[in-house]
Amino acid sequence: MTTTLITGGTVVSATGRSHADVLLDGDKIAAVLRPGSELLGTDLLASVDRVIDASGKYVIPGGIDAHTHMQLPFGGTAASDTFETGTRAAAWGGTTTIVDFAVQTYGERVEEGLAKWHELAAGNCAIDYGFHQIIGGVDDNSLAMMPKLIDEGITSFKMFMAYPGVFYSDDAKILKAMQVAADTGLLTMMHAENGPVIDVLAEQLIAAGKTDPYNHGLARVWQAEEEATHRAIMLGNITGAPLYIVHVSARQAVEQLALARDRGQNVFGETCPQYLYLSLEEQLGASSEEWGSFEGAKWVCSTPLRSRAEGHQDHMWRALRTNDLQMVSTDHCPFCMKGQKELGLGDFRKIPNGIGSVEHRLDLMYQGVVTGEITLERWVELTSTTPARMFGMYGKKGVIQPGADGDVVIYDPNGHTSIGYDKTHHMNMDHSAWEGFEIDGHVDTVISKGKVIVDNNEYLGAKGDGAFIKRGLSQYLI
Amino acid sequence: MTTTLITGGTVVSATGRSHADVLLDGDKIAAVLRPGSELLGTDLLASVDRVIDASGKYVIPGGIDAHTHMQLPFGGTAASDTFETGTRAAAWGGTTTIVDFAVQTYGERVEEGLAKWHELAAGNCAIDYGFHQIIGGVDDNSLAMMPKLIDEGITSFKMFMAYPGVFYSDDAKILKAMQVAADTGLLTMMHAENGPVIDVLAEQLIAAGKTDPYNHGLARVWQAEEEATHRAIMLGNITGAPLYIVHVSARQAVEQLALARDRGQNVFGETCPQYLYLSLEEQLGASSEEWGSFEGAKWVCSTPLRSRAEGHQDHMWRALRTNDLQMVSTDHCPFCMKGQKELGLGDFRKIPNGIGSVEHRLDLMYQGVVTGEITLERWVELTSTTPARMFGMYGKKGVIQPGADGDVVIYDPNGHTSIGYDKTHHMNMDHSAWEGFEIDGHVDTVISKGKVIVDNNEYLGAKGDGAFIKRGLSQYLI
Amino acid sequence: MTTTLITGGTVVSATGRSHADVLLDGDKIAAVLRPGSELLGTDLLASVDRVIDASGKYVIPGGIDAHTHMQLPFGGTAASDTFETGTRAAAWGGTTTIVDFAVQTYGERVEEGLAKWHELAAGNCAIDYGFHQIIGGVDDNSLAMMPKLIDEGITSFKMFMAYPGVFYSDDAKILKAMQVAADTGLLTMMHAENGPVIDVLAEQLIAAGKTDPYNHGLARVWQAEEEATHRAIMLGNITGAPLYIVHVSARQAVEQLALARDRGQNVFGETCPQYLYLSLEEQLGASSEEWGSFEGAKWVCSTPLRSRAEGHQDHMWRALRTNDLQMVSTDHCPFCMKGQKELGLGDFRKIPNGIGSVEHRLDLMYQGVVTGEITLERWVELTSTTPARMFGMYGKKGVIQPGADGDVVIYDPNGHTSIGYDKTHHMNMDHSAWEGFEIDGHVDTVISKGKVIVDNNEYLGAKGDGAFIKRGLSQYLI
Amino acid sequence: MTTTLITGGTVVSATGRSHADVLLDGDKIAAVLRPGSELLGTDLLASVDRVIDASGKYVIPGGIDAHTHMQLPFGGTAASDTFETGTRAAAWGGTTTIVDFAVQTYGERVEEGLAKWHELAAGNCAIDYGFHQIIGGVDDNSLAMMPKLIDEGITSFKMFMAYPGVFYSDDAKILKAMQVAADTGLLTMMHAENGPVIDVLAEQLIAAGKTDPYNHGLARVWQAEEEATHRAIMLGNITGAPLYIVHVSARQAVEQLALARDRGQNVFGETCPQYLYLSLEEQLGASSEEWGSFEGAKWVCSTPLRSRAEGHQDHMWRALRTNDLQMVSTDHCPFCMKGQKELGLGDFRKIPNGIGSVEHRLDLMYQGVVTGEITLERWVELTSTTPARMFGMYGKKGVIQPGADGDVVIYDPNGHTSIGYDKTHHMNMDHSAWEGFEIDGHVDTVISKGKVIVDNNEYLGAKGDGAFIKRGLSQYLI
Repeated sequence: MTTTLITGGTVVSATGRSHADVLLDGDKIAAVLRPGSELLGTDLLASVDRVIDASGKYVIPGGIDAHTHMQLPFGGTAASDTFETGTRAAAWGGTTTIVDFAVQTYGERVEEGLAKWHELAAGNCAIDYGFHQIIGGVDDNSLAMMPKLIDEGITSFKMFMAYPGVFYSDDAKILKAMQVAADTGLLTMMHAENGPVIDVLAEQLIAAGKTDPYNHGLARVWQAEEEATHRAIMLGNITGAPLYIVHVSARQAVEQLALARDRGQNVFGETCPQYLYLSLEEQLGASSEEWGSFEGAKWVCSTPLRSRAEGHQDHMWRALRTNDLQMVSTDHCPFCMKGQKELGLGDFRKIPNGIGSVEHRLDLMYQGVVTGEITLERWVELTSTTPARMFGMYGKKGVIQPGADGDVVIYDPNGHTSIGYDKTHHMNMDHSAWEGFEIDGHVDTVISKGKVIVDNNEYLGAKGDGAFIKRGLSQYLI
Repeated sequence: MTTTLITGGTVVSATGRSHADVLLDGDKIAAVLRPGSELLGTDLLASVDRVIDASGKYVIPGGIDAHTHMQLPFGGTAASDTFETGTRAAAWGGTTTIVDFAVQTYGERVEEGLAKWHELAAGNCAIDYGFHQIIGGVDDNSLAMMPKLIDEGITSFKMFMAYPGVFYSDDAKILKAMQVAADTGLLTMMHAENGPVIDVLAEQLIAAGKTDPYNHGLARVWQAEEEATHRAIMLGNITGAPLYIVHVSARQAVEQLALARDRGQNVFGETCPQYLYLSLEEQLGASSEEWGSFEGAKWVCSTPLRSRAEGHQDHMWRALRTNDLQMVSTDHCPFCMKGQKELGLGDFRKIPNGIGSVEHRLDLMYQGVVTGEITLERWVELTSTTPARMFGMYGKKGVIQPGADGDVVIYDPNGHTSIGYDKTHHMNMDHSAWEGFEIDGHVDTVISKGKVIVDNNEYLGAKGDGAFIKRGLSQYLI
Repeated sequence: MTTTLITGGTVVSATGRSHADVLLDGDKIAAVLRPGSELLGTDLLASVDRVIDASGKYVIPGGIDAHTHMQLPFGGTAASDTFETGTRAAAWGGTTTIVDFAVQTYGERVEEGLAKWHELAAGNCAIDYGFHQIIGGVDDNSLAMMPKLIDEGITSFKMFMAYPGVFYSDDAKILKAMQVAADTGLLTMMHAENGPVIDVLAEQLIAAGKTDPYNHGLARVWQAEEEATHRAIMLGNITGAPLYIVHVSARQAVEQLALARDRGQNVFGETCPQYLYLSLEEQLGASSEEWGSFEGAKWVCSTPLRSRAEGHQDHMWRALRTNDLQMVSTDHCPFCMKGQKELGLGDFRKIPNGIGSVEHRLDLMYQGVVTGEITLERWVELTSTTPARMFGMYGKKGVIQPGADGDVVIYDPNGHTSIGYDKTHHMNMDHSAWEGFEIDGHVDTVISKGKVIVDNNEYLGAKGDGAFIKRGLSQYLI
Repeated sequence: MTTTLITGGTVVSATGRSHADVLLDGDKIAAVLRPGSELLGTDLLASVDRVIDASGKYVIPGGIDAHTHMQLPFGGTAASDTFETGTRAAAWGGTTTIVDFAVQTYGERVEEGLAKWHELAAGNCAIDYGFHQIIGGVDDNSLAMMPKLIDEGITSFKMFMAYPGVFYSDDAKILKAMQVAADTGLLTMMHAENGPVIDVLAEQLIAAGKTDPYNHGLARVWQAEEEATHRAIMLGNITGAPLYIVHVSARQAVEQLALARDRGQNVFGETCPQYLYLSLEEQLGASSEEWGSFEGAKWVCSTPLRSRAEGHQDHMWRALRTNDLQMVSTDHCPFCMKGQKELGLGDFRKIPNGIGSVEHRLDLMYQGVVTGEITLERWVELTSTTPARMFGMYGKKGVIQPGADGDVVIYDPNGHTSIGYDKTHHMNMDHSAWEGFEIDGHVDTVISKGKVIVDNNEYLGAKGDGAFIKRGLSQYLI
């Protein structure tokens, strides 16, 4: 087995930093050591197979993106990144683990849906991957299957309060599933938007001739998110089930989370880079020669981009600082403009929902360190340590400590990254929602289970490097 | 330099646990390694001077008690633990660092007060110690001196909204001191009780013939704590100074902290074991042959024990879980009944305020792990990691990582500790406020800067083992 | 036209009291005068047809019960009071106006439902009556009809978030109806309980063999009320429609109302005497020789009686004082035990929901004045003035002023009323939910549109005395 | 005694309006009658001495300004309106009652201070007047005198948390005075600003050369008002004393009031027209040829004008709607620029604090009806009915009902009032803080105790028309 010594760097954890060297032995971390070439008489540099100099750089646990949708069928098409292309792009960006979503659709057996996703991913991934289970149809079969998911290493499931007729579960169904979760330790993830209300508003906009992409955001009012968030919290309160709200974007939804947490309820929330940086106003103003005002389709996602004038973006940053939000995932769900997004020309409801960000999460969040929104430690906590704890991978992932997987990123605070379609972009899309973003830092080296897969702007990994992770129960309850 | 290998234990950090060995080299931690006797061909067991078997036990960073008052002059007497006896008792209980309070009284120059405390502590301590600075008199001199404290390694200061005529600062003084804090990075600590109001109520109780110790608690109404907490928060809001509220005991005070934190203000709070476990009702019912109802004097402290019927204790535990409170200190301020507490026979106002707990903090908090109030990780975070981050010692203290001081405690979850005056008590007191508490765990071994100072129920340290710590600025701001 | 002078009493309004005489001329109030027999030279006593001595008594506007269900079909039976018996009982209790609910069921045209109710009531009522419109089925027809209701004098409509399959409207339907309300000024009334969730919990209780009546309360958890209240508020927020929550019983629902009102939203709430005086604990302990534990069926109503230990009842009184709740109605919906309530023997879900209180509202609320829960003025405001303002009848009803209908009650604070089936009970029921309540006051005289209909414990009115009231828009918006 | 019939108008009360005639007999209201010339055979028009046609106009109870400071000594000068000039100006504006403040200064006996104020007012007032008692020095004498004030008809007293060295009371003193209030029913009024904090900030501004008038507002930060409001509420909570906060101007202070009211505490707040209409931004921009930037001194008052960008003004209007604020007074405290305000040239701290508004309150608030901020009924409630209830005058004042004083204003919604120094201004000032305000309504006729004192833009009253009112206890507790 290969041994590697990462020397001279600053190891950053969720609680602090240290000048320390990291010794990898095969696919695991073997030791964290004081800097210097000697230990108990052993000349370390001479004893290892490879030395990586991380002087002046940060050594951090590999990023964990707990919310991606590779190849997700949606609106008559499918997310444009396969497990192969998507995980490779993730690796480029310093993410060494994703948790994607296996889908059970209404009427389908959960185990069949899950099997399909295993088939899609197996042997194709550049980095390790786990699955949450989408429960698109609550019935006796799926309720009975849910506890068995834990044995499969799938310890979290997601329901939707939006998308009636697609993934939507009504309150009675959610209640039943949460009762199972409370009994077993499964973590309930929720897309919290009042779909029936949104669909009425969207239909009325279309009827009024308002078909441009930004109307997507006008239809998905913050009240629909706040309301569903509160409702999910109350269902959690009735059942005793912990609750994790995905892609929080409305400040009022955060306020509901904060209130619930202050009274001691186990509720959590993630936000995504798009809700920190992008806004409805920019979507409204978007235009291009090629697409005209349909250009805004690039930023159609759900929950939607929200109004900067209403202060949502600032509030998301603040909530990341105050721990009212605990994590940052991407909700990576890429669609090309050609052939995909353009399905919604003339009717914003038909634009496939999603933005591709899996490659840029670490960079975009690091920029928040540069601008003073979060600390360096919080950056690591939000992008790696908490995801690992929240989703039952801590110890193996999310931390640099002996025994952990050798998932390590060397990040250069003196580097620079220009984001854009023809720049650092490796996702399978024909555009970037992040065109023009400049990052005052750079992912220099990415090590996955002891293997260097990205180095010096070169991809050194291979399809199939990544394996399925059986996750344990969430370790992050209050 | 001696090398020590702690093998086979479970290293617990604020974020998780790992099966790892810890190598100490001299007074520092040299490495954290995967379990096993070999590393890069070196036989570790054979290479070190000493091996400590921690199998089945927790290996944690030494406890940090950030709020003690050794030898504090108060009410015409002085706290009964000297720096020698008090720090030794702390060591017995797994605490390897204290931060005590140097006192500047009204009219005195800060540097003189500080020098006195240095003199009291130097050469006498069993473990490392730092100082906060009490500013008992805000004037041009003290305001000018405050920034210089940082160079002295004293990066936090405490003011009192209680005790008019003793330590009390009025709002104008607090404002001025906080302005200095905001400019320099000093952390403001606050005893938040409305002293003038309490003194009126206390005087009225005495005038009504209500002299028993528990009247102390009746006079110090929760509203006085909630009010002062809110006021301190607003002064922090005006000045931009971060704020740390000491010994929080009222649920309504926690609510004020939670509200301020939710809106993004840098405010923090500690509570103490007495506010988690003890109550006004018990003090009210206390009686003994020796002392009659004056027995209750053993639990006279400020802020006071609060009514269990009002739910304060449960709320403190909850706030520790929700991070509305961040730390647990002891406010160790011991007084004997004979000759000290009895000064208040016939007038509860004259009972010296304080409880001795410095020895029992880790045990008492571990019992909260046993009963499910907090997680094992949160135990470490509350008693060591956060105190280190909050008060500028992280890296050196509060974490097991290479380069850190070799402050390590081996805690046995299968051990047992009976607390009581003639049992595990080493504090210089003639009674224990914790008589009869049983702990399902035991501090087996205490290592301070690489030296084993407690082992197998034997004290192996010496007066003067501990040194003064120059602390850096708080690393724990939101 | 007959003239009547009510002399010597204390006229009580929502804002205060005055010693004044009230002159009725025909069916209207002609003047309010200073006490004394003379005005501008006219000998008043000699000039009027009738003089009523109200010395030592309160002269108040006739009570308005804005929430009754005479003859309501429910669960395979119908409320046991007809418009004739129910309005007569109301008159006995000092209520001179009711607003009942016309019902449109799913699939029915609104105008047909309304016509049915007109037919049921016309010519049968002892006192004036109005209608709210229940919209049981939102569709294009009903949405188009809603604005026309205003011309019919029906300016408020009610929807149900409970009772799936019966009256239930989903969020999309509620949104559409509220949009109409916002456009037209109709007031939206809401039964705010999450019915789908309650139905799951109720089914699970039955499946577990828990069939006794009090399980009705266990199934209808406070979270279901709080949640639906919050959801209705958010739908009101989206649409701009004012909102009136009926029969609020959970303290947490009140908190939602208070929060919304504090931020300026037009939301209102009523509670009912049963939520002020009765509790789940008493229902749980109810037992009789005749019915055994099924005795508790007498108090099966929705929202349910709530736990006194949780403090709901005290909170309802408090909310009436703080104006977080604005009105007290009865939700009068009586069912006999024999042949009606007993339908639910063995399955609490089949117990017809409802309590009969229309006769006792003024007395029960006056007892709150006696016990100091509310002021005398607030009593009048809660039971008459605000209902008139809220539902577009003020000026004609709800106030003693010239031009108003001659609806006046003379209430004796030195009288006494014993409530019970064989005592003051005139409702068409075989039991009283209020058996044994003693009131320190008495409805002495009830005048409806200038006609004395109750006097000296004698009923002097006649079927058909009451007429339909075309109501205007709500005058009570914030 | 003269009899007067006001015919054809719309009588507006706090709860609604009616078409009614009002009969005055001597100094009292004798009856409120349906419109029309006949009653019980009496020809009313022929029977009365005088008929006033109010067709098309509002007939309202005379305004009550519960917060004025005639002749108040302040900052080495005295408010420029005497009781004679100030009450006459009030009458011009439709205010028929004021409650001014008798002053006890530190060291003075309360009865002496009170006697002085009686002397100043007696025989000089155009309208009725009452006194609150300022307690500038809490000591045994003043505490003993306070209960006796009730017999003097002085049922409310005011303390100051601002102005150290002048009116300031510390928390201990406030607590003691509130204890007396709780025991006796006296209503505690509070100037809620943290004076010691403000004085430090003001001194620092002066030291930095910031002497212009608007710095007054920068020194008096909203936090100082919020903090003191919260502190006063907690002192009220400890003692059980009801609390009335004067001149609320910060939205955060309103939030504290709302929170306290929601939990059932008896706390109340008034705001003033300046906090609804004027802002710090306008003061900052104020400039004139005569005064340069010192022009801003015209708007120096305490609490200060607040930033419009921070939303305080909108929040005050909202709070008036939601009843989180209950009243509007003026805090009328006029000073001329020449010889008075100019004392503060070069040091804003020396500008006498105060704005003159007693004449314009009804008009300014009516404009809020025109712009839709409040309803017509709320206008009457805020300016007359609630002040009467709050301060123990209801029945005599604040309502049009038989037996009440004949204080009636006829307000023409089709009239117009231009406010300005050379327009409708009758206050003894050399400028108007309200220059240029245009009101879409007009005070046509003012009747005080049956005597027409203003009519057709002519003053018909006389010095000494007004008498001292002995007030009862507050009738407005929650």
